[in-house]
Amino acid sequence: MVRVDARDDDVVVAVDANGADLGPAEVAAGAALAARQGARVLLFGPAREMSASVDLPAALVEVVDAPVSIAKSADPVRAARNTPESSIVQAARAVAQGRAQALVCAGGTGAAVAAGLFNIKRGRGIHRPALALALPVPGHPVTLLDVGANAEARKEHLVQFAFMGAALAQVVLGVSRPRVGVLSNGEEAQRGSALVVAARAELQERVRASGWLELVGNVEGGDVTTGVADVIVTDGFTGNVALKLMEGVSQTMLGAVREAAMSSPRAKLGGLLLRPSLRVFRDEIDPEAHGGAYLLGLRSLGVVPHGRFTRKGFAQAILRAHKGASEDLVGRTYAALEQAGALKLAPASVRASSLPPDQ
Amino acid sequence: MVRVDARDDDVVVAVDANGADLGPAEVAAGAALAARQGARVLLFGPAREMSASVDLPAALVEVVDAPVSIAKSADPVRAARNTPESSIVQAARAVAQGRAQALVCAGGTGAAVAAGLFNIKRGRGIHRPALALALPVPGHPVTLLDVGANAEARKEHLVQFAFMGAALAQVVLGVSRPRVGVLSNGEEAQRGSALVVAARAELQERVRASGWLELVGNVEGGDVTTGVADVIVTDGFTGNVALKLMEGVSQTMLGAVREAAMSSPRAKLGGLLLRPSLRVFRDEIDPEAHGGAYLLGLRSLGVVPHGRFTRKGFAQAILRAHKGASEDLVGRTYAALEQAGALKLAPASVRASSLPPDQ
Repeated sequence: MVRVDARDDDVVVAVDANGADLGPAEVAAGAALAARQGARVLLFGPAREMSASVDLPAALVEVVDAPVSIAKSADPVRAARNTPESSIVQAARAVAQGRAQALVCAGGTGAAVAAGLFNIKRGRGIHRPALALALPVPGHPVTLLDVGANAEARKEHLVQFAFMGAALAQVVLGVSRPRVGVLSNGEEAQRGSALVVAARAELQERVRASGWLELVGNVEGGDVTTGVADVIVTDGFTGNVALKLMEGVSQTMLGAVREAAMSSPRAKLGGLLLRPSLRVFRDEIDPEAHGGAYLLGLRSLGVVPHGRFTRKGFAQAILRAHKGASEDLVGRTYAALEQAGALKLAPASVRASSLPPDQ
Repeated sequence: MVRVDARDDDVVVAVDANGADLGPAEVAAGAALAARQGARVLLFGPAREMSASVDLPAALVEVVDAPVSIAKSADPVRAARNTPESSIVQAARAVAQGRAQALVCAGGTGAAVAAGLFNIKRGRGIHRPALALALPVPGHPVTLLDVGANAEARKEHLVQFAFMGAALAQVVLGVSRPRVGVLSNGEEAQRGSALVVAARAELQERVRASGWLELVGNVEGGDVTTGVADVIVTDGFTGNVALKLMEGVSQTMLGAVREAAMSSPRAKLGGLLLRPSLRVFRDEIDPEAHGGAYLLGLRSLGVVPHGRFTRKGFAQAILRAHKGASEDLVGRTYAALEQAGALKLAPASVRASSLPPDQ
């Protein structure tokens, strides 16, 4: 089994502070919070701006001045290729060079995925990276992947996503034996697109060979919020639509409840009385609690919190990234894929030489 | 332009009363409600059961005893083929024979689609039928299609869905110039699966030739509830996942609000005070108000209300079906597709002879 070389307390998280709606100082504040809980951080961003407003513990947070941001780039792939001085590329390089063991990017998913792919590179035997999101469903969080790293997928990608997501759920989110479902338009094994039917059939074989996760079969859109699965696998197109739809519906409904609570003096009083109880629910569905999207399938873990997060969410992202690296998420994912026979095989002629020496 | 032969007040709606959760009598009650608003109904179901509990106006509602139901069949395609005596097949045949001009099926979408396809048949020049749902988004209902008639789609299908959905929105739902979006994982024209990119490009051409609907371009999952489009086009796999996800998220959130309102005496009082205002919102998102799913692309309109509907929803479905037939939805859809050059061309050798004589 592949293991991270660094001892647990040597784990460093490289953080790109650019891209957050509240500015790099908010990310720096998140890094300070995470450091107070034991994380070590290499922080890339505008040094003066960050240090001016945040008191960073120098022993745990090292700042690298990197003011150039490509978080809002219209063409993040090209930007990641052509802007080596940008904070995200520098952070990804720090991980590639072993100066850090995990990557956190405060905003700009496209740039993070591109910079990660170009610098940290795909994990050994991995077809495609995926973005996984731990959805804050009250009572039973569910990890959905891919939520948008790739617009198209082949069946072997979905099969790998299942193991990648299950490893994340187990190592970082604390689910002991992840139940995995394949998102489809019907529960029966024969229902679904050709991709889903083929992926489910192959997954069934692979899971049998592994036994480490439980395949619950096809799950429907309505099952996402019912807790029948801990991990739900889909292609990046459907996953992205589903994710944004959930956010839209939640916001519309919360907005409607808020509006209803303003519609009359009686309703206003009702809203005031109900507010503390609703706050408990709102905390439960707070996306910041889960740290953001996880970039899986690279040689190190990446976490991409949402750009609108506050310091709390950025701290959570850093701590989750730290945990993933400390507990060797990448190595465990590799081991699970290997045991299930789901690794991508390199052509025989180049197989030996193409393996990175340290993995 | 193709026109329905029957004069408007001669329009009859064939209704399959089997399949409803509350039983055929509830559908019969819905038929009675619709008849009181001027609809004429040919009602297929268990005659004694329906007549025993509902007072049906004989001049407007004709009952055909058809107790056999295939609504819950595990293989609806086979059942629709092999069960000519079933209520849905009899109802679809009545439409095919011209005894009725539209079809309403109270439950069992799969059986309705199969019975419709086999008996009413695909409309001239239509590649594939589609299921369209008018989503009850507060303030701005949006029609989503396909929500599950086909698991896979080609670009020419999505192009036709756009015109079919726009015609529905205009004729039956009262939108004067429908704005149509293509569901994707990003707003930019180049974003999306290969299917979406190709469909959007072709749609842009077709819309230019037609000018009768407005193409707003790609819309994301989050746009479904914001009212940027009146009609959103997608493949049946994504549409089905999206629809069930929306239902699941809405129910989960309403449940959470309800639970919050039970969590303490203070919250209980708040919930009681807020209840009347929330009821307004709940009515606004009531799926029964929109009659259910529309089966488009056959030679006559079909409407499939949800099996859990009450008489109110069934009445609404019958009235919408009546309106669609009266105002010649099928003919108008054909005309729009013809003008846009989006009809499927029959092979030249069989083109003339394969056209149905009456269309």
